[in-house]
Amino acid sequence: MNNFELDARLARDCLVLGKLNISLLLLMNNKLVPWFILVPQTSEIEITDLSQSDQADLLEEINLLAGFIKENFAVSKLNIAAIGNIVSQLHVHIVGRDPADYCWPDVVWGTSERKPYTAERINEITTTLSEQLGDKFICLPGFE
Amino acid sequence: MNNFELDARLARDCLVLGKLNISLLLLMNNKLVPWFILVPQTSEIEITDLSQSDQADLLEEINLLAGFIKENFAVSKLNIAAIGNIVSQLHVHIVGRDPADYCWPDVVWGTSERKPYTAERINEITTTLSEQLGDKFICLPGFE
Repeated sequence: MNNFELDARLARDCLVLGKLNISLLLLMNNKLVPWFILVPQTSEIEITDLSQSDQADLLEEINLLAGFIKENFAVSKLNIAAIGNIVSQLHVHIVGRDPADYCWPDVVWGTSERKPYTAERINEITTTLSEQLGDKFICLPGFE
Repeated sequence: MNNFELDARLARDCLVLGKLNISLLLLMNNKLVPWFILVPQTSEIEITDLSQSDQADLLEEINLLAGFIKENFAVSKLNIAAIGNIVSQLHVHIVGRDPADYCWPDVVWGTSERKPYTAERINEITTTLSEQLGDKFICLPGFE
């Protein structure tokens, strides 16, 4: 989509790791849980307003991230959600959860505790994404 | 799926309205927001562990419910989420939200305020589902 601009709040709270087929891939800058966000490059607000084909592409990206989180982080549950009450730009949270994490069994939305990643750890995650997702992931260092 | 049994907590908090293709359709017994829940009849815990075909069916049901909520309730946003930190049985929340509702812009999960529906209103919703979803919805009064 031309003229796509990432919402300012997402840009502030998250790291833009790269691009998948239709979405930007963001990482919430909070190492307390592995919290990825897919931002389809669209002006639609609801998943269900995307075309059937874009929904299928987005679902494939959700599956990719779900697999990546389960493979690389010590989690026992996934939380997958499109909420958008505060940031209306369509974005899908994929969060790895575990009984040992900072707010289990509560949801992460609305919590304010945050611990930012080190630059080294972010590089590590991005490298692993490149290795495991292959050409489905386009690394975009310095996207924003 | 044979031997499928609805989780006891879902059965306690929700009304079972009927069946769609792969899911039971539940309504959270809380008229403060239109809060529907799809429970695919499976033993898988994560959406992303369903077969591609079951995921596609579930996505179609999510679209159906999203359309139904936008058509019949005064809402301006949808929250669509699979969480399952407390009830692990796979279930997808589809909640109609609005700046005028009881907990906007917070998420509904973790809130305790509830106002149960009247029997009359439940009948009305079920009848409208039957009318608008046609043979995609099988009404199951007294399912539980």
